[in-house]
This record gives sequence, structure tokens and C-alpha cells, in this order.
Amino acid sequence: MGPGPSNVHPRVLQAMAAPTIGHLDPEFLKLMDEVQELLRWVFNTQNRLTIPISATGSAGMEACFANVFERGEKVLIGVNGVFGKRMTEVAKKYGQIAVSFEKEWGKIFEPDFIRVVLESEAGIAGVALVHAETSTGACQPLEEIGKICSKHDVIFLVDTVTSLGGIPVDVDGCNIDVCYSGTQKCLSCPPGLSPVTFSEKALEKISKRKTDIESWYFDLSMLQKYWTTGERVYHHTAPVNMIYALREALLILGEEGLETIFARHNLNSRALLSGMTALGVEPLVEEQYRLPELNTVKIPEGVDDKKVRSTLLNEYGIEIGAGLGPLAGKIWRIGLMGQSSTQKNVVYFLTALEQILKKMGVVSEGGKAVKAAEEVYGE
Amino acid sequence: MGPGPSNVHPRVLQAMAAPTIGHLDPEFLKLMDEVQELLRWVFNTQNRLTIPISATGSAGMEACFANVFERGEKVLIGVNGVFGKRMTEVAKKYGQIAVSFEKEWGKIFEPDFIRVVLESEAGIAGVALVHAETSTGACQPLEEIGKICSKHDVIFLVDTVTSLGGIPVDVDGCNIDVCYSGTQKCLSCPPGLSPVTFSEKALEKISKRKTDIESWYFDLSMLQKYWTTGERVYHHTAPVNMIYALREALLILGEEGLETIFARHNLNSRALLSGMTALGVEPLVEEQYRLPELNTVKIPEGVDDKKVRSTLLNEYGIEIGAGLGPLAGKIWRIGLMGQSSTQKNVVYFLTALEQILKKMGVVSEGGKAVKAAEEVYGE
Repeated sequence: MGPGPSNVHPRVLQAMAAPTIGHLDPEFLKLMDEVQELLRWVFNTQNRLTIPISATGSAGMEACFANVFERGEKVLIGVNGVFGKRMTEVAKKYGQIAVSFEKEWGKIFEPDFIRVVLESEAGIAGVALVHAETSTGACQPLEEIGKICSKHDVIFLVDTVTSLGGIPVDVDGCNIDVCYSGTQKCLSCPPGLSPVTFSEKALEKISKRKTDIESWYFDLSMLQKYWTTGERVYHHTAPVNMIYALREALLILGEEGLETIFARHNLNSRALLSGMTALGVEPLVEEQYRLPELNTVKIPEGVDDKKVRSTLLNEYGIEIGAGLGPLAGKIWRIGLMGQSSTQKNVVYFLTALEQILKKMGVVSEGGKAVKAAEEVYGE
Repeated sequence: MGPGPSNVHPRVLQAMAAPTIGHLDPEFLKLMDEVQELLRWVFNTQNRLTIPISATGSAGMEACFANVFERGEKVLIGVNGVFGKRMTEVAKKYGQIAVSFEKEWGKIFEPDFIRVVLESEAGIAGVALVHAETSTGACQPLEEIGKICSKHDVIFLVDTVTSLGGIPVDVDGCNIDVCYSGTQKCLSCPPGLSPVTFSEKALEKISKRKTDIESWYFDLSMLQKYWTTGERVYHHTAPVNMIYALREALLILGEEGLETIFARHNLNSRALLSGMTALGVEPLVEEQYRLPELNTVKIPEGVDDKKVRSTLLNEYGIEIGAGLGPLAGKIWRIGLMGQSSTQKNVVYFLTALEQILKKMGVVSEGGKAVKAAEEVYGE
């Protein structure tokens, strides 16, 4: 119940443990096609270039920036948490001009703000935002901003590491041009791959680059030759077993259905926060922008942050996340991602937390939290 | 029996399928320490910075070049196969001057040649060679060249993707400063990680860089803060289950013992080549430079390369590798790596190949190949 990795379904672990076959084996090539099709489905896109990068989510971020922008290009980057900040660091590594606009952690960027910046600042090549900021639990609305980017003909790049498979991600509907995610959050697959997708507009921009892409491992022009049916030109040895795992995880998502999954995430989050509120622990993020898969709550005054987290881990076997950056020591981050988003986890966590807070003398009577959660489930 | 991935021990697959825990979980941090210690052992080094990069072997190559050399620096790169050529491509991506010296594929570089180049060419920052060239089956001797690099105070960078765990790799004894490998060859672990190790000389060079490292994901200054005991600063989400697998694979190597493993690789290769020779199929590489884990043989005149390989795969379930580059259509590459290096595999492969060649009318009487191999085993 931390900010990821989430719990992995036994079927995924089992699939991953199948014997390793060659990365050019005809059976594996079929599996690659299937994974691409499943990724298009979960990203809600028709983009032909929709593949998993052979490394974790931050590598997906790097692959996106490295390919789609060039040295000296200006990218507007929204920074309202760790991962927006990381985008600026990655862009700088590639000699791009990161025009970062900051917002208080836990808040989101308004479309009007983006519009004004795009209208007043010349030579912007793209806008980059984090859909689900794992460090704050805030959900950035994308639809309006996608339209604005489209109108201004700039690239819209979105981090969906913690949103994909937990809340709706609509790449085509939101005019997203470049999008990366991770496997270890709401897809409930072990960490090790980063699904990415590129619109035709993004591919056209890449094809018109004046300079070579400054990375070999992340060079899409080579990667797509390996992933494209009929070509299959060897680039690097794909992490075969991780691809098995990703396929199985996506199949499990398909069996449950995205709408059902989103409703489950929503329900469990509401129950959790209702229980927390009953304990006097308040959510950080305004209701309409809360991520159901990553619940951030303010640590009540006088409560020992570290002691609560270590007791949860050592006595109850529950991991939750600490606050980062300006929120360090101020919030807890409780993940209810993918397979971890269950009523059982919510009830068990609330019971554990209530017991701990009671021992600390912060809460007097018991059972309030679970009762509040159960009321939500009973609605 | 291709050029990798090799067969993975069931214990490794099982270990990989253990439940995913957090990348900052105290239990996982212990496991990271253990993996670093095991990697130092298999690399034969005391280097403190000895870690797995969270991506496949080619990413390890990229991480090494990106960190240790700077834009504009000259690196001598030996090109006698695919992976030497890849080194030049990676170096160029990072704006380094790849001074490539070519040699016929299947041959090796003589120490005297390197010495002469270093004496005559000014401003060389490093020498980069491939220990075990997977595309040719040639083994590059390193010891003398390491001494020469040391004398000239240049960085010695070595690719040990296909050698580590199959033949002796002696990082400290050969004065290797920067070394990367892969998990899916003689370590018999699925692909997905790239073990790397850096000498103090390499780390000192990195610490004196005038320019920032031009990659975020591969930036060692951040990676080492995550891997160093006591620091553990979050960088990216480690591929937790792959690390489980790597530990188990290394433990299995430890149980058998490196000397025993090297002897096994040697014996099986000799048996294989003896059987092949009996079929009129000759090795490509001169005896003293042959890699026992990757056996390259010349396809006899008139034999249909693709038909043999597809029959092996479809009728016998055996994968072997095709020739690449100038050797395409001219050689086969038969891997006997790690867990795949067994007498059973040798005998089964020879039986299958003999049957196929007999049907093609290339071989007349049967049983020659296995008999020749068994003589080697009976010695």
C-alpha cells in the first residue's frame, strides 16, 4: 500500500516464471504483437507506435523527451511534485530548455494558465504534464489542455505512470502526443517496463529532427524496427519474462474491464478516506482532483511519522509512503493501486492505523474508522 | 542454444516469481547488498561500484560510455563484430570521437597493435574492447592490453556480456576500469539487467567531468546513492523481481563454483565441435581464441542455412543463431551458455543436426557426430 510497486496477481508472477525463450523466437514475436494491441487498448489509442520500453518508468520519461525534442528546444513543464521536477532534469540532460512553471504541491494546472503561457511565450515545442503526481496524489485534468496544445500545434507530453489502469487515460481523446507509464502501479505488474505511445504528430516531429537522437538504447527509430510486425530487426535483447508478465497483467485488466476497475479504485479510496477522516486524518488534495489509487493525507499534529510507518511495516506488514520534498514529514501516501485496491486492504489498514494511533494516545475510542469505511461500502 | 538468452534454472524462475516488495523495503535493501557482493565475486573485483543497471546489456554499454567519457573525448574502439560496432554507435550518440580500428570478424586484436596506436595517437581517453564477441565466437585476450592501458593511463573498457560466468573474467587482474555484462548469457538469468563495475580510476575520471552526464536514467552519480549502503536515495523504481532472479542465478553459480563451471563449458564445447567436425562442419575461430559458450561454425557449401535453423526450431525445439553482418548466411552460432551447457544438449543437438543433414543428402552414414562427441566425454 505504498506509492508502488503494487501487489502483483499470482497469475502474473506465474506467467513471468515461464521458461525464457529467444527475443526473436516466432512465438515471442506473436506475444509482442499481442502486448502492443493490449497497450493500445489500455492507453485508449490507435497509435501504431505503442510499445513497452525495456526499463522502468523513468526510462520511459527519458525515452519520450530524448526522441521527441531536440537540443535547444523549449518545453513547458508543469512542476507540482517530484515527477514534474524530474521531467525538467531529464529535459536538461538532453540540452533542452525546460521552461518550468511551478505550482504548490497537491494543486493542479488550470487550462487557462497554459493557454496564456502558450500565447505569450514564443517558440514553445511542447507542454509536459504529470497526469497522476505520485508525490502528491493530485490528478491533473488533461482534456482542455490537450485541445489547447492541439490548437497551438505543440506536442502534448503526459506522464501516466500512476494513472494508467487506475483512472481513465484517454490518449486519443485528450490529444496526447507522447505518453509514458510504468508497469508497477495500477497495472499490477512488477517494475521493469515502461509502456509508451506516440501519436502520428509526434512521429512526424521525430522524423523531421535535424539532429540525431542522443541515446542508443532509447532510440525509437531502431526500437520500432524491432517492434514492427514484418520488420523485427534486432536492437537489444528484450526482457522476455517481463513481457510475459505485462501481457498477463493486461489480460487480467481486460477480464475485469476498465470501467469496473475504475469504479473499484474510486470506491476503495472513498472508503479509505472516510475512515481516515473519522480518525481526524484529513486528505491533502481537494476532492475533485484526488487520485483514488494514491491517497495523500495530512499527518495529524504531534504524531510521529516514522514511528507510525515503521510500526505499520514491522507489526502489520503494511507499507505506506512517506511525504517527499516540501511534503516530507507532513503527509502519508497510501496506495490503493491495481490488485492492492481491495476492501480487505482498506479495512485492515484502517484497523492497524487506528490501533497504532490509539496506543499513541491520539485516538480515544476504537472502531470508528472501519465503521466509517463500511458505511461507504454499504451505500 | 542460440546466442542468448540461455536456459534459465527453475530455481531462478521460481525466485523471480516471489511477491514484489518495495524498492526501499529494508528486506530489499539487504538483498541489494547481497547482489553487489555476489557481482564483485563473479567479476573478480574489489570495486565498490558494482551494481546491476536496470535494463538489458546494451543499456549497460550505454551507461558505461555515457558516464566515463565526455563529449569530444577520443575512444579507441576495437571492431571485429556486431558489439564492437555498437560501441562506436553508442559513443557517437554521446558526442565522443570513436576511433574505431577494424579487424576481420572472428579474429582478435593483438596487444602490440594497441600499444602502437596508443603511442602514436595523441589524446586517447580510453580503449574499448569486446571480451566475448557474440557475433563471431571469438575471445579477446585482455591481460596484456590491460597492462598497456594502465601504463598509458587510459581507461580500459570491456564488454563481458557473453563471457561473465562462462569463461574467467578477471576485472582487477586485467586492469579493467569499466566493465558491463548481461544476465541472459552465462549467468542463465532472464534478460533485463546489466551488471556493471567501475574501478577507482574510472570513478575518479567521472568525478572530474567538466560536463554533466547526458542521461538521467544511467547517471551513476545518482544510481550509486541508491545502491550505497546507508544512503539509499530513491532514484528510480528498481526492477525488484529481476533482482531476485539475479541473486538466485549468482547463488547457483556459487554452489557449482566458477572453476567447475568453466571446465564444464570447455568440455561441452570441445565435444560439440568434435561432433560437428565429424559432420564436415568446421569451426570459424582459431582454436586458442574460441569461446566455449558461443560456438561458431561455417555452414557447409550447398546447405540451406534457413531451412536447417527452422527445422531445428520447429521439429526439434532447438534454437541456434544465424550469422550477422558479413557472416550472415555463412555461419551458425551455437550457444552452450550457463545452464544450456550440458552433455544432453550437445548430444541432442548433434543427433538433430545429423538427421537434418542426412535428409538433405549432405551426410551419408549416421551416428558419426555423437560418437565423436562421446569420445571427448570419455577422455
